[in-house]
Amino acid sequence: MIDRAAIAAARRQLATQPDFLRTTPLMRLSGKSLGVDCAEVWLKLEHLQVGGSFKARGMLYRLLANPVPESGVIIASGGNAGIAVAAAAQALGVRCEVFVPEVSPEAKRARLRALGAEVVVTGAAYSEAFEACVARQKTTGALQAHAYDQPEVVAGAGTLALEMEEQGGRLPDTVLVSVGGGGLIGGVAAWVESRAHVVALEPERAPTLHAARAAGQPVDVEVGGVAADSLGARRIGAISWEVSQRHVHDALLLPDDAIRAAQLWLWKELKLAVEPAAALGLAALQTGAYKPQPQETVALILCGANFDPASLA
Amino acid sequence: MIDRAAIAAARRQLATQPDFLRTTPLMRLSGKSLGVDCAEVWLKLEHLQVGGSFKARGMLYRLLANPVPESGVIIASGGNAGIAVAAAAQALGVRCEVFVPEVSPEAKRARLRALGAEVVVTGAAYSEAFEACVARQKTTGALQAHAYDQPEVVAGAGTLALEMEEQGGRLPDTVLVSVGGGGLIGGVAAWVESRAHVVALEPERAPTLHAARAAGQPVDVEVGGVAADSLGARRIGAISWEVSQRHVHDALLLPDDAIRAAQLWLWKELKLAVEPAAALGLAALQTGAYKPQPQETVALILCGANFDPASLA
Repeated sequence: MIDRAAIAAARRQLATQPDFLRTTPLMRLSGKSLGVDCAEVWLKLEHLQVGGSFKARGMLYRLLANPVPESGVIIASGGNAGIAVAAAAQALGVRCEVFVPEVSPEAKRARLRALGAEVVVTGAAYSEAFEACVARQKTTGALQAHAYDQPEVVAGAGTLALEMEEQGGRLPDTVLVSVGGGGLIGGVAAWVESRAHVVALEPERAPTLHAARAAGQPVDVEVGGVAADSLGARRIGAISWEVSQRHVHDALLLPDDAIRAAQLWLWKELKLAVEPAAALGLAALQTGAYKPQPQETVALILCGANFDPASLA
Repeated sequence: MIDRAAIAAARRQLATQPDFLRTTPLMRLSGKSLGVDCAEVWLKLEHLQVGGSFKARGMLYRLLANPVPESGVIIASGGNAGIAVAAAAQALGVRCEVFVPEVSPEAKRARLRALGAEVVVTGAAYSEAFEACVARQKTTGALQAHAYDQPEVVAGAGTLALEMEEQGGRLPDTVLVSVGGGGLIGGVAAWVESRAHVVALEPERAPTLHAARAAGQPVDVEVGGVAADSLGARRIGAISWEVSQRHVHDALLLPDDAIRAAQLWLWKELKLAVEPAAALGLAALQTGAYKPQPQETVALILCGANFDPASLA
């Protein structure tokens, strides 16, 4: 089970790699300065993490907490998780194979190769790349990394919440967290427990947690839309589903146009260049999908910035 | 004279506007993580300041420290200073006129208008817009703001260094500061005094301080190159020149290609989207123009982000 002790243990092990993992800044603004009727808005600038997303925490921990065989680490991911594993593997000097589907953009493959990973392009969809990855792992014995549904990956993500509590000197009243496969919210909720409200945010077109809550268990959903690149998991992970049932207060859906508008606002008004997935928190505040109390402190986690900055122009 | 007392006074007055001015994050990284042979590199993320540059500090202080007539505030600037004045005037509810030359891009004029400023387009070059601005001020009696050479503007910029010292719990050993008209380095050097080394960085093609040091006094220089948009003042300001003679340790020149490479690196590796002027510090470290000692902590000030993010793609 992922609990605060597991996250504190992750943090101790991650602290052995200060030349790799970064302490990301916490920016504190008055609600009024953002046009939001609440006391404070905290922005955890986790898109400044190595590899450009929070994933580096979990992936590095996966590698540190397990023996890594000669064949290295292996993962199926065309996105942030793949970049994070490749970067961590490079830092530790271990081999890395990343399976990506044929639809993945060449720019992402090039980025993985630049990080020293061997990129295997296979299958029309992610699920086929994943199956090929599992089959390959059985022949090589490499350490398998999963983009969101492994204990180390969730606990590693949870260190972000621990760090935020230290930086703020306390927890905020509410944390708004974007959800795809759920690795981030699982870690955050496990650290926060019932000491603050954790609210899940999902694109209407990628509602894994929302659908699971409606069905009473994880179910497959169709995914698409502006944030599918990073929030496009088809099903919430089992570990995070378990945590979320205890510690996630609410799950809200946001339309693509609100997400995109918030992403553009973050650049124009705050000069934060982030991917759509990182803009759901602001979108929830700006649309009123989440309405804070006047005395409330709300934290947003800016979770990634692996995107084309020309899309902000 | 701009000294620590003047900067502390500026800070007290600026603190009355917490819904406008931001405390910008200080990001601390090991030198090794940046491939630099020093203990730590601090990044003061001042490009996240309101208006997208450090200028808001000085311009807000100019408005707070003086009676503002009915005719408001007036400035000649097509760049960061104009945006900062317009934003501060809007926050305080005072009128604002900004004079820009005919060569200024329409995008910048639109940004000024969106902040409520009246934009006057006049003159082929900045110097002509400036003269027209001075003439207009004589008829309206508006409060004149100067982009870099006024005591409040320099003292306001200095609050950035005060804030960094608080955030770091100490001063770094060295601060690398980009120089155009010198408003920023004047404030930083006046706060730091001889407690740390302050090193000036200038593009080879916009060497105002370098030329002044060679001539023994401020002189006009030709300006151009990738950072001219924000560092393209033709002459170092008198106030900052005076401070720099006491407290600036060295003045280094950097070629445009190194500045541009550092700007791209900041995006690719750190996900910091900043204008070329903000990349001189990293360029100095990466080219070896500035060589820190192994035990040294070096601070870089990321001073602005008013640029087209498509240039990073």
